[in-house]
Amino acid sequence: TIDGADQSTKIDDKVNELLSKMSIEEKVAQMRIFHATIGVKSDENGSLLLSDRVKEKLKLGIAGIKNPGEHISPLAAAKLNNELQKYIIDNNRWGIPALFVTESYNGVDAEGCTKFGRPLTSAASFNTDLVNRIWDVVGKEARLRGMHMCHSPEADIVRDPRFGRMSEAFGEDTYLTTQMVTNAIKGVQGDYEGLGAGTHIGAVAKHFAGYGQVLGGRNFAAVEISPRTLIDEIYPPFEAAVKDARTLGIMASHGDLNGIASHGNPDLLTSVLRDEWGFDGYLVSDSNDIARLFYFMKVAESPEAAALMGLEAGIDVDLYAEDSYALLPKMVEENPEIEKLIDQAVRRVLRTKYILGLFDNPYIDLDKVNKGVRAESSLALAKEADLESIILLKNDNQILPLNKNKPTKIALLGPLLSEHTKTAFESVAGSNITFMAAKGFSLTDEKKGVPSLLEKNPTAISKMINIARQSDLVVLYLGGDEHTAKEAYFNNALGDRATIEPVGQQNELVTKIKALGKPVIVVLKHRRTLSINTIAQQADAILDIWDLSEFGDESTAKIIFGEVSPSGKLPVTVPRSIGQFPFHYSQKEINYKKGYLFLEEGPLYPFGFGLSYTTFEYSDLSISNAELTPETEISVSVSITNTGSVKAKEIVQLYIKDEIRSVSPPNKELKGFKKIALDPGETKTVSFSVTPKMLEFTGKEMTKVLEEGDYTVMVGSSSIQGLSGTFRLNN
Amino acid sequence: TIDGADQSTKIDDKVNELLSKMSIEEKVAQMRIFHATIGVKSDENGSLLLSDRVKEKLKLGIAGIKNPGEHISPLAAAKLNNELQKYIIDNNRWGIPALFVTESYNGVDAEGCTKFGRPLTSAASFNTDLVNRIWDVVGKEARLRGMHMCHSPEADIVRDPRFGRMSEAFGEDTYLTTQMVTNAIKGVQGDYEGLGAGTHIGAVAKHFAGYGQVLGGRNFAAVEISPRTLIDEIYPPFEAAVKDARTLGIMASHGDLNGIASHGNPDLLTSVLRDEWGFDGYLVSDSNDIARLFYFMKVAESPEAAALMGLEAGIDVDLYAEDSYALLPKMVEENPEIEKLIDQAVRRVLRTKYILGLFDNPYIDLDKVNKGVRAESSLALAKEADLESIILLKNDNQILPLNKNKPTKIALLGPLLSEHTKTAFESVAGSNITFMAAKGFSLTDEKKGVPSLLEKNPTAISKMINIARQSDLVVLYLGGDEHTAKEAYFNNALGDRATIEPVGQQNELVTKIKALGKPVIVVLKHRRTLSINTIAQQADAILDIWDLSEFGDESTAKIIFGEVSPSGKLPVTVPRSIGQFPFHYSQKEINYKKGYLFLEEGPLYPFGFGLSYTTFEYSDLSISNAELTPETEISVSVSITNTGSVKAKEIVQLYIKDEIRSVSPPNKELKGFKKIALDPGETKTVSFSVTPKMLEFTGKEMTKVLEEGDYTVMVGSSSIQGLSGTFRLNN
Repeated sequence: TIDGADQSTKIDDKVNELLSKMSIEEKVAQMRIFHATIGVKSDENGSLLLSDRVKEKLKLGIAGIKNPGEHISPLAAAKLNNELQKYIIDNNRWGIPALFVTESYNGVDAEGCTKFGRPLTSAASFNTDLVNRIWDVVGKEARLRGMHMCHSPEADIVRDPRFGRMSEAFGEDTYLTTQMVTNAIKGVQGDYEGLGAGTHIGAVAKHFAGYGQVLGGRNFAAVEISPRTLIDEIYPPFEAAVKDARTLGIMASHGDLNGIASHGNPDLLTSVLRDEWGFDGYLVSDSNDIARLFYFMKVAESPEAAALMGLEAGIDVDLYAEDSYALLPKMVEENPEIEKLIDQAVRRVLRTKYILGLFDNPYIDLDKVNKGVRAESSLALAKEADLESIILLKNDNQILPLNKNKPTKIALLGPLLSEHTKTAFESVAGSNITFMAAKGFSLTDEKKGVPSLLEKNPTAISKMINIARQSDLVVLYLGGDEHTAKEAYFNNALGDRATIEPVGQQNELVTKIKALGKPVIVVLKHRRTLSINTIAQQADAILDIWDLSEFGDESTAKIIFGEVSPSGKLPVTVPRSIGQFPFHYSQKEINYKKGYLFLEEGPLYPFGFGLSYTTFEYSDLSISNAELTPETEISVSVSITNTGSVKAKEIVQLYIKDEIRSVSPPNKELKGFKKIALDPGETKTVSFSVTPKMLEFTGKEMTKVLEEGDYTVMVGSSSIQGLSGTFRLNN
Repeated sequence: TIDGADQSTKIDDKVNELLSKMSIEEKVAQMRIFHATIGVKSDENGSLLLSDRVKEKLKLGIAGIKNPGEHISPLAAAKLNNELQKYIIDNNRWGIPALFVTESYNGVDAEGCTKFGRPLTSAASFNTDLVNRIWDVVGKEARLRGMHMCHSPEADIVRDPRFGRMSEAFGEDTYLTTQMVTNAIKGVQGDYEGLGAGTHIGAVAKHFAGYGQVLGGRNFAAVEISPRTLIDEIYPPFEAAVKDARTLGIMASHGDLNGIASHGNPDLLTSVLRDEWGFDGYLVSDSNDIARLFYFMKVAESPEAAALMGLEAGIDVDLYAEDSYALLPKMVEENPEIEKLIDQAVRRVLRTKYILGLFDNPYIDLDKVNKGVRAESSLALAKEADLESIILLKNDNQILPLNKNKPTKIALLGPLLSEHTKTAFESVAGSNITFMAAKGFSLTDEKKGVPSLLEKNPTAISKMINIARQSDLVVLYLGGDEHTAKEAYFNNALGDRATIEPVGQQNELVTKIKALGKPVIVVLKHRRTLSINTIAQQADAILDIWDLSEFGDESTAKIIFGEVSPSGKLPVTVPRSIGQFPFHYSQKEINYKKGYLFLEEGPLYPFGFGLSYTTFEYSDLSISNAELTPETEISVSVSITNTGSVKAKEIVQLYIKDEIRSVSPPNKELKGFKKIALDPGETKTVSFSVTPKMLEFTGKEMTKVLEEGDYTVMVGSSSIQGLSGTFRLNN
């Protein structure tokens, strides 16, 4: 808009005026972030307490501070952050405010905020509006505690379940991830409007680029990927984050990309991100990663060379390091040329602060905090999201939902049971149902860094069997605990795994419980894809809940007792074995179709799969025109009827396959989805537009091309089930 | 040489003259190979018998025929092939002879030839001279049965043990593979001189390029690899095959390379192979792969488009397909331009035939055949190679070698036992040792295409235990049979695997046998890397024999009874789990050093590792100059002393690590090795030249660069043990 352009010019003028007055040390301070743990606290009265080290730093101003007030209540954090901001403004020559920075995997990563399900969980909802509203709450709750930027969401494509961080992103598919990430960013930024209005915070899409492709699923590992796959499958969520969602920030990726350290890669961070996509925002390093170009990545000969490499690549803000951009003032003395690059970076940081309105309105209105954080509507949203994200993988003989009116004794068993599970189930089930609960055994000890698998406990299972014997039906909570899949920092903090079998005695447990002859419902709680062959064989029903909100137990009980029909679908392929990877559904067919000796072919559960308490019939696939041209689009529609007896939602999925193309074609690719609600007997028609843009790919000459030929379109309930038709693209 | 150049010009003149007379149909016939199974046989008197289909084809001449006489004796094959060649020459207008084509994984792939160990086995010898002599025998034996070309050796880098063909290549390391492949080619071609002399055959290095990198280890799969890794790690064996070993032929790779089908990739097959490296030889498709560009790879819109794609990419010869280059004569009518490309391909094929002397001397002297094939020296070489290739992985309490003079009852047990094992052991061990033998159970049924794992046989192990109880010591033959690792053609012929655990009851067997308290020596016979965690824990000693020659049992017995000390070293990394892959020793350190939760770090056995019956002490590492310049070289030397009591060979390995470089550096890389023999107490000094060429890599701008800086050099007995020093490269 013209208003927007005016606003932007005004900001640029102010930034330039400010910049012209700043010393080199002040400029560089605007390129650094430190963590609050180095000396930002509140005293017993809740008043600000700064270490001398922090006070010394703040004399020059600062780009930002990570997580001030992380472990105190939202109101206390808001108060602290107001004081901190005032101190910063008062103590640097030009009164420049700081950015307070948080993250969000499942709600603001701080005390007292609404806890939602993890990104991979919400991706299972295939509900973009829902994700948008979740992140709207994240943005509001973060801003209300005095935060301004969120080093989230993850726009990475995660296809390797060995990677401990896979649940922080939105799954294996490029299109699904793009939809989720852009909605998350729009939500957290309040459609960009919320930034200046002071109601929301800036997003930082990460990790650019290829972080999900670390070799062997090992954090910090090298990445090997063809340039074409990088462009066609890894870039799109980032490109959309910039162009469509207007993300304020981007974070670079740990490690290398085809041999070039991402933090020292100007082709990636400047040519692609800024020149091609027009990104002009805040480009921040990952923790210490500019310094690590020297001491870890070994691609720079000295800390100074590392700092120069990061600066020249285009990184504006150095996260944490004390020996990297900190060296720039001295380096300028010897190499005055680089001040231009410094000015450019500082401009972007100051601009970010102006966009967030921090110069005009740096403080939080404390009266609003307690009303705004954990609002009833936010808690309700967390519950709503859970109910849309739970995936029903198996339901033999329609054992689910359970009938609340039928007196039943249920044994709640298993290592993933929480102390609240029984209460939650009781509150949902009502008085006809009685529960017995026993966790039985834990999977890991409680060491935080490198936990151990616990020894097998021979009595635990027999105790659980005794409880199960007294029940009519068993609900088994299996999966992985918080230690078995998490971010692996280094060798003293592991979280990546070489296998994806359920650990400990879980397979034994489900097998022995099933042998009692009672119905077994498995609730699968986990943060990485698991190869649940034994569970899939033994359980009568499986609810895959991944990692739900703080109301997860209650939500699971609601699904089990049929208050809502499950409507989540798998945002990843579930394999039979880690040895099948790489194994995403869209993989080129020449690869996907070749089986292994002694292993059943194909996935255990395919991408996009999920059952319902009702049945849906797809019919009348109709393609508006058998021919598409570069200037036209066609419409593909299908009728879906709820042929069962309960109201339910269905995720209708559109897949397209280029039958023949000059560059070997993917198996098929998700190009659209719609989530619809249907009453019993109701029919709805769902239409998708197929546009030439959807059919573009990076051709032999490494430019985007649109190729004549035949395409197959499938509309259905998963990546392997649906109605198919064909059309032809003529140039 | 000038003679060589003259010869080459003469050939070109002859080729051009011939070409000028040929019809388009005759030309295209020189671009096609068919398999002898379609109609080349001998009758009961050993005389040639051709099907009508073959006779019809041969009227036009033919580029070549695969495997005529494969299943008959060398002499019968020579006779048949002489008759076949005469028929061909007599029945095409210009009397053009044909190429008869074979392969070699472990000696000529035909009846009655010397059977050597597989390439991966011989790679374990780290003895280039030995490999050269093996392939010299292959070349001679093949030529004597009337063959002219060998669609071998494999120059692929094999790093994924899921891949069923891994034992056909020389292992995970680029340098080792390069040494082995060039020596194999020089051997099979008789140092090129043997081609025209009629004593040897032409090599075809395959599969260009990246075939070992198939995703998921699945044959025909897509390949994703960074362009830099492709150049620095995958190309070198091929480049050396062309430039150093002067291979007559190259075969393209199945599948795609970063999205572009290899058989339709002019950058790969023409720009790199011909323009950059100067290859002017016979470029052949893999089986049916030009036609598959259409019906399998789906990158060509029709069979005609596939043929054109292969032709334009630079493939001279179409292996087998009836609907690809066969279409060229008709295509020329519509598109006369392509005749130029056809002429170019035919020229290369005819030139190959001239180089092989086939116009002047197309027949085998039958008198030489039986003297030349399976000569005493060849059989002795097979035995010698075995003894150099067996790897001692574990030898607790120096249980090996066994003493022939000490009366001992030995139980030979396990599914990998052959019917000859007991006899072979008896012949080596002499009269003091008595043997009992029982295979116990098989691993798979004998179906050829998709074999099944056999049901567990509960009595088999107890029977074996009973035999073991009567013994003083157990030798257990474990590993994988011929069905568990092999080329996977399609879904009706599988050979790739998703796990690398030993199949069947093998872990149970070794555990129960060990529980008897008797010494257990495991002989590991297999064609893919296995994660032998249980075996490594239970066995007192492990001899890793991979897949030895026809004398393998005898060779293994000789090592066990100490006739020779083992001297093989691992040409691959042995992992703890398939989940650790990719996992080669030279992998970038940022990747390699990060461990997995719940898994011991690092490999089970590292690349280059292997024990001996003696001990070696490394001392006095000396670097001739602390500084290297682009114009100089330095010498790195080390003293090795045999500090044990038996004569033995040691493989001294040179590794170099670039400490810091602009493109993230490999962990370390093998850059030299020497195999030396030492008497007890003897010391030898081994020197390696370090040249600037060894330090080159593909830099940021995708050209080869040499970077200033510090390098660490290690000389030692494996990739993780040795003496280290440093030097600096100054430009």
